Amino acid sequence: MNKKGIIEQIIKTQSVLCVGLDPVREKVPEFLIESFPETWTFEFCKRIVDATAKYCVAYKPNLAFFEAEGIMGLQALIQIAKYIKENYPEKFLIADGKRGDIGNTSEAYAKAWLENLPFDALTVAPYMGEDSVKQFLLPNKWVILLALTSNKGSEDFQKQSMWNGKPLYKNVILTSQRWATEEQMMYVVGATNGKEMAETRTLAPKHLLLVPGVGAQGAKTEDVFEHCVTKEGLVIINSSRGIIYASDGKDFAEAAGGAARDEQQKMAVLLEKKGII
Amino acid sequence: MNKKGIIEQIIKTQSVLCVGLDPVREKVPEFLIESFPETWTFEFCKRIVDATAKYCVAYKPNLAFFEAEGIMGLQALIQIAKYIKENYPEKFLIADGKRGDIGNTSEAYAKAWLENLPFDALTVAPYMGEDSVKQFLLPNKWVILLALTSNKGSEDFQKQSMWNGKPLYKNVILTSQRWATEEQMMYVVGATNGKEMAETRTLAPKHLLLVPGVGAQGAKTEDVFEHCVTKEGLVIINSSRGIIYASDGKDFAEAAGGAARDEQQKMAVLLEKKGII
Repeated sequence: MNKKGIIEQIIKTQSVLCVGLDPVREKVPEFLIESFPETWTFEFCKRIVDATAKYCVAYKPNLAFFEAEGIMGLQALIQIAKYIKENYPEKFLIADGKRGDIGNTSEAYAKAWLENLPFDALTVAPYMGEDSVKQFLLPNKWVILLALTSNKGSEDFQKQSMWNGKPLYKNVILTSQRWATEEQMMYVVGATNGKEMAETRTLAPKHLLLVPGVGAQGAKTEDVFEHCVTKEGLVIINSSRGIIYASDGKDFAEAAGGAARDEQQKMAVLLEKKGII
Repeated sequence: MNKKGIIEQIIKTQSVLCVGLDPVREKVPEFLIESFPETWTFEFCKRIVDATAKYCVAYKPNLAFFEAEGIMGLQALIQIAKYIKENYPEKFLIADGKRGDIGNTSEAYAKAWLENLPFDALTVAPYMGEDSVKQFLLPNKWVILLALTSNKGSEDFQKQSMWNGKPLYKNVILTSQRWATEEQMMYVVGATNGKEMAETRTLAPKHLLLVPGVGAQGAKTEDVFEHCVTKEGLVIINSSRGIIYASDGKDFAEAAGGAARDEQQKMAVLLEKKGII
């Protein structure tokens, strides 16, 4: 899926919402685990997807939560990736793994997630530099590079100044633009960083940004629109826990759909204000 | 396994060798894939382990190569981890995944690799800071934090100076020592960095260091001993391709054993020279 295709989807659905799929045993409704003891991970994600597809442009399974369930988790991940691409082929599908290793190893990760499975994008950690990232630059696939994350630990290194007076995350954004175009790479910028979100947009005016941190992590959709949405530079805003765990009862899917619809309606107003739709 | 236990193993085997398990379909002997079309990943690793166990202190499956084989790969990874711990319980077992994410997500990675499976350690990327790392600090388990990697991309950010005049990788080593002791954390320092290896040892005089880059990546065991082995501060030197692909014929396991033995003999001489054994 190319940038044009993603933007068309944003306009069509009047939404920049990405639903993060983080299936956690302790949070998934009890009745579902009892009904599907061997396949609850997939069943949970499938119901969330069916309930939210009208309101979002992307899905982002975080690989950690599937890995924590072993073989069943990996089977669920493969199944949900295929289910989404078969039933909602226009959705942008992100494998959130924050992978990255030396060249021949990153090649194996690229094979695992972008070739063997129908993911459109993989999140990648920049620490190991160019040769750890470029193996993921495959035709019609995306690298989503960590720049400024939404957690407190972003202060430890990402926000620390480097030799040129700019913080590490800005150096990541500037340096990595030599490796790939805005048709191949997006950046992760946490919504919990107001001022820095705006500065990121200045450094990468045409890139799509993947913005986590809205919802359970405390940031607001309005702030993301204020700081880093332009006509040329759009965003994909991820919400995970705030949507998928909107209810832990029998109505969990309906409640997730409702939470996604609320987000989408808010986003539609903001997209209109910006003159995008 | 604690630091004392690892050092006892080093003294007992007269070796600091870690054998990296990187099973790649194109490099594994053809006859083995034909004989075990569904389980060659495990069968290859098992034979390598049996042939090299006498000469090494650790094994390090790199998760990427298992992920690239989908469900079979994950099954093989689980099987080989259990096989090693059942048959060679004294070996230090490292999951090389370079994971790291926001707190609740790192918790899921910790569950996946350090709780559900019998790995002693996980390699972790430092980019997301303290709260992405501390979830892995479990009793008797190790975080092996990326500091200075062996690839060319280490120049892009790791070796760049920060506000205090020190390169990023040194800041990672200094800052992360506030998060964990040398009984909980090791650092990855690529053997391809002569001068920087020595500087790392100065910054972390008592830590175990995991040193990749010897063999196929061009660095030498002697250099590692010269630059960063002391009586208090020991290393684990990883070699993957140079050992496991010593031959692609029917004698592949025997050849791997021979390559491991050669390394071990070299290491024994160097350990003796340093007065460690």
